[in-house]
Amino acid sequence: MHSYRTHNCGALRTTDAGITARLSGWVHSKRDHGGLLFIDLRDHFGLTQIVLPTGSDSFAKADELRVESVITVTGEVVLREPSTVNPRLPTGGIELRVKALDVQSSADVLPIQVAGEQNYPDDLRLKYRFLDLRRDRVHRNIMLRAQVIASLRRRMVEQGFVEFQTPILTASSPEGARDFLVPARNHPGKFYALPQAPQQFKQLAMVAGFDRYFQIAPCFRDEAARADRSPGEFYQLDFEMSFVTQEDVFNTIEPVMAGVFREFGNGRTVTEGAFPRIPYAEAMAVYGSDKPDLRNPLKITDVTEQFAGSGFGLFAKIAASGGMVRAIPVPGAGGNPRSFFDKLNEWARAEGAGGLGYITFDAEGPKGPIAKNLEADRAAAIAAACGVGPGDAVFFAAGKPDVTPKFAGAVRTKLGTELGLIEENAFRFCWITDFPMYELNEETGKIDFSHNPFSMPQGGLDALNSQDPLTINAYQYDIVCNGIELSSGAIRNHRPDIMLRAFEIAGYGADVVEARFGGMLQAFRYGAPPHGGSAPGVDRMVMLLADEPNIREVILFPLSQGGEDLMMGAPAEVGLDRLKELSLQVVLPPKVVKS
Amino acid sequence: MHSYRTHNCGALRTTDAGITARLSGWVHSKRDHGGLLFIDLRDHFGLTQIVLPTGSDSFAKADELRVESVITVTGEVVLREPSTVNPRLPTGGIELRVKALDVQSSADVLPIQVAGEQNYPDDLRLKYRFLDLRRDRVHRNIMLRAQVIASLRRRMVEQGFVEFQTPILTASSPEGARDFLVPARNHPGKFYALPQAPQQFKQLAMVAGFDRYFQIAPCFRDEAARADRSPGEFYQLDFEMSFVTQEDVFNTIEPVMAGVFREFGNGRTVTEGAFPRIPYAEAMAVYGSDKPDLRNPLKITDVTEQFAGSGFGLFAKIAASGGMVRAIPVPGAGGNPRSFFDKLNEWARAEGAGGLGYITFDAEGPKGPIAKNLEADRAAAIAAACGVGPGDAVFFAAGKPDVTPKFAGAVRTKLGTELGLIEENAFRFCWITDFPMYELNEETGKIDFSHNPFSMPQGGLDALNSQDPLTINAYQYDIVCNGIELSSGAIRNHRPDIMLRAFEIAGYGADVVEARFGGMLQAFRYGAPPHGGSAPGVDRMVMLLADEPNIREVILFPLSQGGEDLMMGAPAEVGLDRLKELSLQVVLPPKVVKS
Repeated sequence: MHSYRTHNCGALRTTDAGITARLSGWVHSKRDHGGLLFIDLRDHFGLTQIVLPTGSDSFAKADELRVESVITVTGEVVLREPSTVNPRLPTGGIELRVKALDVQSSADVLPIQVAGEQNYPDDLRLKYRFLDLRRDRVHRNIMLRAQVIASLRRRMVEQGFVEFQTPILTASSPEGARDFLVPARNHPGKFYALPQAPQQFKQLAMVAGFDRYFQIAPCFRDEAARADRSPGEFYQLDFEMSFVTQEDVFNTIEPVMAGVFREFGNGRTVTEGAFPRIPYAEAMAVYGSDKPDLRNPLKITDVTEQFAGSGFGLFAKIAASGGMVRAIPVPGAGGNPRSFFDKLNEWARAEGAGGLGYITFDAEGPKGPIAKNLEADRAAAIAAACGVGPGDAVFFAAGKPDVTPKFAGAVRTKLGTELGLIEENAFRFCWITDFPMYELNEETGKIDFSHNPFSMPQGGLDALNSQDPLTINAYQYDIVCNGIELSSGAIRNHRPDIMLRAFEIAGYGADVVEARFGGMLQAFRYGAPPHGGSAPGVDRMVMLLADEPNIREVILFPLSQGGEDLMMGAPAEVGLDRLKELSLQVVLPPKVVKS
Repeated sequence: MHSYRTHNCGALRTTDAGITARLSGWVHSKRDHGGLLFIDLRDHFGLTQIVLPTGSDSFAKADELRVESVITVTGEVVLREPSTVNPRLPTGGIELRVKALDVQSSADVLPIQVAGEQNYPDDLRLKYRFLDLRRDRVHRNIMLRAQVIASLRRRMVEQGFVEFQTPILTASSPEGARDFLVPARNHPGKFYALPQAPQQFKQLAMVAGFDRYFQIAPCFRDEAARADRSPGEFYQLDFEMSFVTQEDVFNTIEPVMAGVFREFGNGRTVTEGAFPRIPYAEAMAVYGSDKPDLRNPLKITDVTEQFAGSGFGLFAKIAASGGMVRAIPVPGAGGNPRSFFDKLNEWARAEGAGGLGYITFDAEGPKGPIAKNLEADRAAAIAAACGVGPGDAVFFAAGKPDVTPKFAGAVRTKLGTELGLIEENAFRFCWITDFPMYELNEETGKIDFSHNPFSMPQGGLDALNSQDPLTINAYQYDIVCNGIELSSGAIRNHRPDIMLRAFEIAGYGADVVEARFGGMLQAFRYGAPPHGGSAPGVDRMVMLLADEPNIREVILFPLSQGGEDLMMGAPAEVGLDRLKELSLQVVLPPKVVKS
């Protein structure tokens, strides 16, 4: 018989009754029922009830053990009394009558309980993460993560991708965030950087001729933690393809994403077929966001024209001074009491807006403060533009063009949520496309890159040389699911001439580009294929699937909010000899003396 | 028609003759045959010959292109003339008659050639790695690596393992090598360390109840480069299992290793069934190494007893003074000329030995300088112990017990190689088991850990309390293939009481253990399962399979011997603002002034 187990704790069934079995696991709970001690023995696979008769040797050993001790028990599998069968457990029809018990590891008094669903402070959970991870929910989250990643790998391979490992000790990358640095002992005064993403290396892999690359890639950014961002490292499904158009990228990756969400969605609806492609300009106009939550059925309509020169002076004035009025029509919301509209108005003020104007429509026509001053034909035109009628309501966001679309988006989200309009149990994907290549920096009056300077501008060199830069879009795209941006991607600029011109427009000379991105630019001079890709965030995907709002719930051993490993004690001070070896000296910032 | 390709460059066959196809790829080579320009167009998938007629628009464009430029060509697939069919190419029956050609990227003069097999200095290859990677051999190596890793993953999952990601920004680990450090910006004066291995985290995953862990794990050691060791990062197939004995680990991982070597071994023989288990003491005695190459049929025999008190004074004296005499019998080697033995003697002297004694046997009996002074019955006893007879030879390594077994191993290797006895086209695996837990430090006279202090001592606490420490073995094991150590592993010590005692024997107080390994020790106090694992080196496996002696040949973007990324320019200096942010100052070592 095996030293530790003939079965795991989720394996025994009523058909095993009569056999002698050996199990090993953690004492999940103990119940003393007079002459018998019942223990739920737990391992990765499940729970099995074991029974020890009073007076037995095993009873004495078990009696003094704390929960979470690890034991090995040997005994006979017996059917439970019908009244004690537990139909919720796969092993609930049997129990193990223990004849021998070995203690493998006895537990001290626990700082956090494994059984039950008590809440503990984050810091305590992280310090005792090895206990926290035994708890059902987080254990399942981590297993889900592992399964999601395995499924992503399988699906990428099915699509012809090959997984490569890119360097982790590398050069500072141009992603824009702050790098982690690693002192190079043998190169005094010099540092490696941890990659913010394998962006340059995956592009170089394409230049090297490896047609389709992917990687479940660790990425490192020295940024503050957020609910959806770890303070140190995170993982993305990094991929890149050669000789592809934007549509090829979309068609290739959609089945991977939808497939994974369908596989692990637990029956939740997933976008069927091609994901909607929504140009950036349309996303801002219709959803007031470049991360639209398509589970929200509300759509925004521009009604600036209808208010221009109208009797409703406030909006007419906004329209006349270059502003805009956006309407958020809500079918069926017209019948709400005044208090409903007042509360929304308060919310809007708290958000920094002047308020939230609205028109309700009933059988007699438009109603409400705005309608009072608005010409009937204009109200009718608004109703027509918004597709509303009696019983419906239209809300308005009005103001300057730089803030109004976003505020309209916030209104859309607020109304969708408040009115319970958000589709439940669904994952709604879309692509946001055609991001502008450049934007005007309002402060400096100069032209900046909007997003990724390495994306191919639509129209190529011709466009850069002949178009107003602010009208040029890039072959750049985001994947959005339920209002959450899962990734940014692009068809890359693989042409040194186009790249130098693109940077020139943003005010960077060739010398700067060569100095900062020389490695990649150099590579493009020796035959580079057209290529593109993206990198959906793995942690975010798992958060969505696990329905967890905090990223730490889906990471095995996460750093704390403050970037500390509370279990292993990192970061930590190091000896002076180590620092000397690295040609470094610590210069602590002056302490603030409190008077 | 697709913008870039209807087929890849390895796809077209004679059955495609007549269709219009579009291909994209690199200009591998150009041949101007009078009225026609032939180009071998290359991509990841293969080569296709394309043909451009003189005078055509495409000819003009192609004519001025350098090799390695990237082009897209459209034309008709036509059968080649029978005399020009290339049977070595899958596409060798056809060619593409180009009607249109687009240049996607024109190449500058190349620093290294892609076509052909010219050798270039390592530094040049690494600086232009994106070109180097297009070359057939290294391209194939990297693809092999990717396939090996994918196969390892599949096989581990089949064995019930789940892949997890362990932290990369973590605490200094007790692996013994030098860590890379990462300054923690928000914790002035403190540092993260990059993991030398996920050792502690995988053990914590077991304590957390995740039964079987594995990971294709990036590991980081700040050590000098060697042919089989990268200067910065390397990958291992890290795995750990709960509730297992040493034999369970062996039985689980053998099919994974043998399976991968069989899958990618290109017909080479792989150890069938269970790998031989060779205790450390036996390995040292019989093979003179704890990394025995089992392709070498020679085995070492101890003949100290046979020489003790014999007429061959040198060996008799060695035997009398606590030394040993090891015999390396070589069947059939007796007939070699004197020069053969002399050369081996010279080799032994160059290795630092006094020489290499030997006896040859012919029909008349033992021969040679040693035999002259050796009693006939003793020579016969040696022949019997070694299983040799007429026509054979026996070589001798004699000396102190600390160096002689290893030298005997060197002799075994030398003879096996010189005489062409090493089995060809075979991968011969074994486990080396029962490593001693402790060893005597000759300098200090104290007891040190021999290898891994976290292995479970055989006999547990009882052994530690009652046995001479130098007689205690550990449940520790290596996987060796063809004389190369692929990994070290162990059944771990999961009991705090046994761990503290084990460290005490090696002279470490509980305070030191708590301070250095408190995280893991702490975890073992709350219910830890018996567990064990190992971590075969991925890079080494690929080196063996690819038959490459240098690890850089199997890594996509390796650092140079000096630890530099010559392509991206790492490590590099960073701005003073970055250093200030990290509370650091560079203190360069004083320059050595040459007089």
